[in-house]
Amino acid sequence: MGLLMIAPIAGLVSIVFAVYLFYYVNKQRSGTPKMKEISDAIKEGAYAYLKRQYMALSVFVVIMTIILALFLNKDIAIAYVIGSVCSGLAGIFGMEVALRANVRTANAAKRSLNKSFSVAFYGGAVMGLSIVGLALLGISILYYIYADPQVILGFSFGASAIALFAKAGGGIYTKTADIGADLVGKIEKNIPEDDPRNPAVIADNVGDNVGDVAGMGADLIDSYIASILAAMILGAAMTTQGELYVILPLLIGAIGLITSIIGMYFVRVKKRGNPGAALNRGTFSTCFIFAFLTFILIYLLKVDFGILYATIAGLIAGVVIGLAADYFTSIDRSPVKRIAEAAKTGTSTNILSGFSYGILSVAPSVLGICAATIAAWYFAGVYGIAISAVGMLSITGMIVSADAYGPITDNAKGIAEQSGLGKRVIDITDRLDAAGNTAKAITKGFAIGAAALTVLALFAAYAEIVNIQTINLMDPFVIVGIFIGAIMPPILSALLILSVEKNAFVMIEEVRRQFREIKGLMKGKAKPQYARCVDIAAKGALKELILPSVLSIVVPLVVGLLLGKSALGGFLAGTIVTGIIFALFMANSGGAWDNAKKYIEAGAFGGKGSAAHKAAVIGDTVGDPFKDTAGPSLNTMITVMSLSASIFAPLIVAYSLLV
Amino acid sequence: MGLLMIAPIAGLVSIVFAVYLFYYVNKQRSGTPKMKEISDAIKEGAYAYLKRQYMALSVFVVIMTIILALFLNKDIAIAYVIGSVCSGLAGIFGMEVALRANVRTANAAKRSLNKSFSVAFYGGAVMGLSIVGLALLGISILYYIYADPQVILGFSFGASAIALFAKAGGGIYTKTADIGADLVGKIEKNIPEDDPRNPAVIADNVGDNVGDVAGMGADLIDSYIASILAAMILGAAMTTQGELYVILPLLIGAIGLITSIIGMYFVRVKKRGNPGAALNRGTFSTCFIFAFLTFILIYLLKVDFGILYATIAGLIAGVVIGLAADYFTSIDRSPVKRIAEAAKTGTSTNILSGFSYGILSVAPSVLGICAATIAAWYFAGVYGIAISAVGMLSITGMIVSADAYGPITDNAKGIAEQSGLGKRVIDITDRLDAAGNTAKAITKGFAIGAAALTVLALFAAYAEIVNIQTINLMDPFVIVGIFIGAIMPPILSALLILSVEKNAFVMIEEVRRQFREIKGLMKGKAKPQYARCVDIAAKGALKELILPSVLSIVVPLVVGLLLGKSALGGFLAGTIVTGIIFALFMANSGGAWDNAKKYIEAGAFGGKGSAAHKAAVIGDTVGDPFKDTAGPSLNTMITVMSLSASIFAPLIVAYSLLV
Repeated sequence: MGLLMIAPIAGLVSIVFAVYLFYYVNKQRSGTPKMKEISDAIKEGAYAYLKRQYMALSVFVVIMTIILALFLNKDIAIAYVIGSVCSGLAGIFGMEVALRANVRTANAAKRSLNKSFSVAFYGGAVMGLSIVGLALLGISILYYIYADPQVILGFSFGASAIALFAKAGGGIYTKTADIGADLVGKIEKNIPEDDPRNPAVIADNVGDNVGDVAGMGADLIDSYIASILAAMILGAAMTTQGELYVILPLLIGAIGLITSIIGMYFVRVKKRGNPGAALNRGTFSTCFIFAFLTFILIYLLKVDFGILYATIAGLIAGVVIGLAADYFTSIDRSPVKRIAEAAKTGTSTNILSGFSYGILSVAPSVLGICAATIAAWYFAGVYGIAISAVGMLSITGMIVSADAYGPITDNAKGIAEQSGLGKRVIDITDRLDAAGNTAKAITKGFAIGAAALTVLALFAAYAEIVNIQTINLMDPFVIVGIFIGAIMPPILSALLILSVEKNAFVMIEEVRRQFREIKGLMKGKAKPQYARCVDIAAKGALKELILPSVLSIVVPLVVGLLLGKSALGGFLAGTIVTGIIFALFMANSGGAWDNAKKYIEAGAFGGKGSAAHKAAVIGDTVGDPFKDTAGPSLNTMITVMSLSASIFAPLIVAYSLLV
Repeated sequence: MGLLMIAPIAGLVSIVFAVYLFYYVNKQRSGTPKMKEISDAIKEGAYAYLKRQYMALSVFVVIMTIILALFLNKDIAIAYVIGSVCSGLAGIFGMEVALRANVRTANAAKRSLNKSFSVAFYGGAVMGLSIVGLALLGISILYYIYADPQVILGFSFGASAIALFAKAGGGIYTKTADIGADLVGKIEKNIPEDDPRNPAVIADNVGDNVGDVAGMGADLIDSYIASILAAMILGAAMTTQGELYVILPLLIGAIGLITSIIGMYFVRVKKRGNPGAALNRGTFSTCFIFAFLTFILIYLLKVDFGILYATIAGLIAGVVIGLAADYFTSIDRSPVKRIAEAAKTGTSTNILSGFSYGILSVAPSVLGICAATIAAWYFAGVYGIAISAVGMLSITGMIVSADAYGPITDNAKGIAEQSGLGKRVIDITDRLDAAGNTAKAITKGFAIGAAALTVLALFAAYAEIVNIQTINLMDPFVIVGIFIGAIMPPILSALLILSVEKNAFVMIEEVRRQFREIKGLMKGKAKPQYARCVDIAAKGALKELILPSVLSIVVPLVVGLLLGKSALGGFLAGTIVTGIIFALFMANSGGAWDNAKKYIEAGAFGGKGSAAHKAAVIGDTVGDPFKDTAGPSLNTMITVMSLSASIFAPLIVAYSLLV
């Protein structure tokens, strides 16, 4: 029991530290009235969207709670509600900070790069530390009350379901606004990005927040919770070792959280320093300290050292995937340069290149996941696979911090641009923003790798729950399950992309209308109707997020009830495999197209305005919903499908139709 | 033994009938000297390529034969050589006919639509009947000699490996030439398709032959052979039923072949008839007659009726997949119209739509395959799955005939255009060509569905050969095998697409150079250097086909030797699942983009020359290597991977490293 207290204490420490950083960020000045005005407009749009989203989600949560209470039991229903609320709170909290940090980062850029960097990074850190702390606290308390990981699975399901809605909705929102703003503003009207004359500019800034801040945090946190629970369930199955293996994931989580706080001291930039290097230094030193502290923990607890090796295998896989993502999407490496060069012969070759390199980028990452899986299993069995996921995700606090930094600086740049802060300030925010993009590629790879190991662990947990030792590929129901599972991720991606397109279509028409009908808009003499664009993005996103999200929850249930628990096992394996492949491919293709465009804008192959540049801009637009809508939603979708299968396992076992 | 004679006799009948049709086609007039000149240029280019390809392949065959003789046994090596030679002969034979039929079809179009249609269709039929006859004859004779299906697997491996080289090489060739001709000719120089001033026009026509005729025939025939062998191996395992279940697949094949000949009598067009309807009438009536004759066979042999149902389940699945492909790629249906409409807002929305609908099109087909698998298994066990594949593929003679018709009419149109045969003749060839495109969508779906059931049967045959009853998904090696298998098809696709792009790049430069340096070319006063373009396409294709083809053969072996036979089983399952998904997605996305462009060209959304049209042309170019290079190669690749695993199974069992 003494050991069990470590986790909630770490969670509390982390939350307290987050509150401290929040005050630090909040006491910074927010700049000129013009800046405040823009920032308020973004805030207003963001809250308007969040309010609507949460209204809709609360209906969903109520229905789901009733279903869980009726068909399963009230404890799971309670855990589910708490999980949903925590996930929702994390979103609001993250936004609250990000919306304060953006304008303050822009203002601090008037003074210096390092000052501005600190505001942005600590803004991100508030989010990272608070949500991870909240998650660890939530799991610990529920375990204290129920002492049954399968009940706490409800918590994980709640958190993931809300995360999925947030990510799918936020992803549709942000790209609707982005494409609408870019296609009309940049291409048709030839005005720069973030220009205040563009009616969709505020919607675009709002999108960065609802998509990237709220969405990205939710992404990692749902894997984090799920990995800990999968490990706890598998640990509980190792009856001979007693409770220690059940609470070990919580202890590793606690160490990771404390390490993340320590790691933040390494994230500092000197006056003319490199913000990107600072972020990476933070991530890597967190990894090392974490490995060292885990070694001490394992040593003190006299647990098998195989568990340490499994943890480290996960960490290494995470780094490998991050580096692979970096190689295939970095502006300095040959894939991006070749994609840019392909733009010389036109749009189609640019698109075919980006598509192909994105697919090739999957190979090293998948091989990394495979190596980690086998190593973890070799050292510590199925439990080891779950622990390697926990190992990777333990430093989530640091990863989310580095990640949330991105949209904050992106917004800061937008605010600096719109309020005319001058070239020097815009340059600083530009440099901060570029560092955010590199960090994003690495953390995105990390998130996908972690999700892969997590869902593999969940898959094992599912088998444990439904009590099957063998899922035989020679059984045609299993093969059929794999087939149906495997088509889910691509189909859900396609649905999300079509949603973005449908919405963007409406947005484009509206932006064109405003340029046509509002007199003096192009000359900057009249203000555009920002609110209407914000409204279009929000309404569309809410309408469109429902189908893919509900499919993720319902299809596993249908497969299980129709074809039986083995087929459902096959289904989960199928979703994992293509889910990881599509998530990596879409994230990396999108990132590579984006940077190929930037490479040309930096002067290659004719530079800005050349035919190659036009082709690359189109490639980037194709990549936008890949990397910011469909790709990042897939992680959460496969987690939700796995959790849905595990949660409803008792029903599936009892009422399965065919088998 | 009496029963066994049915198959080779049917094979011989089919070959004799093919020879008869060959003389029918050959005695038609080949038209004006100008037409003969163009036809000769195409013929010369095609043979130049084929010669090079076969030279290279013979080196490969010799090496492979030595490996098989050394590591396995000389019987398999002999069967392998015969399979390779048959596959190679089928390619040459098909080309020989197609290259005669194209110019004669164009010439017959001067007389009437129905005359011209007959020449084109019988040209295709020569190919369909001769290669299917050859395959059935080959298997029967080898079975007569060795009486061991596992030895004859060598025949299948030889045929599939050559087919893979032919398809990958032909696919790269045809799109290199096509993109080179279109991008410079149509877009930069504004000259129509098939214009004799375009230096790449002959290479483009050659490409239709080496890609579509030789490639497509190889596609279906390799599945055909593999499905029969998988069924024979699984039949041999059903020891209680004796030899009957081993030769039953051959008997069903014989019935299918005879039915295909009968079905050809239904393919007739009246003077003002509809050629597309005639082709479909042929396919559907062949299906019905085949089902009826199989019923009689099963009744006479007193075999379990479950086998009939399994056969019919396969046929129905084939039709469902064909109809789904038709729905998602047909110019009259909403997906293509929406993709065309998306071109209104630009290239990126057009591309995103086509991508998404292509992915959605996978769902009905995969569900069809799943339903057929479960039904076949329910009626006749694992053997039933193999038989359902045999059932689908039995009518391959008819399918290949309808399919080879496409490139013949495509070429005929090109020849009519280049030799200035006048609007009426060109209109007729246009109508014939359009019918070919619709038939192509259906037969392509059919080919993919058949390949899916075939590889599932091969998967079962593999398990039979290595003697495992359980491939457990809970075994991490199996999961890792699935992961590695699942990334193979997308990666091979990406490699092929990058090859096309690399080659097309060289081709574009060459075509531009000729337009720049050859004086009077644009005015039609000087002749372009066709041969140089033909040469570029050929050299590039040969160089680029090696890596993906060799990977398909070697990677299964490496996985098996490193991770063991269960992991290799997982690997095969992984390749099947993503192979089918990517094959369907790429074929249908490509087809849909193509028709979206045609829909706009027919006058929608501004018609030819509008911004929407330009966007749709780019979408079509992106789709070209999807539907004509990567997509169609995937079927054969997954077949080759499965066969490679089964052939080398004894080595894998003996020398596996880890398990």
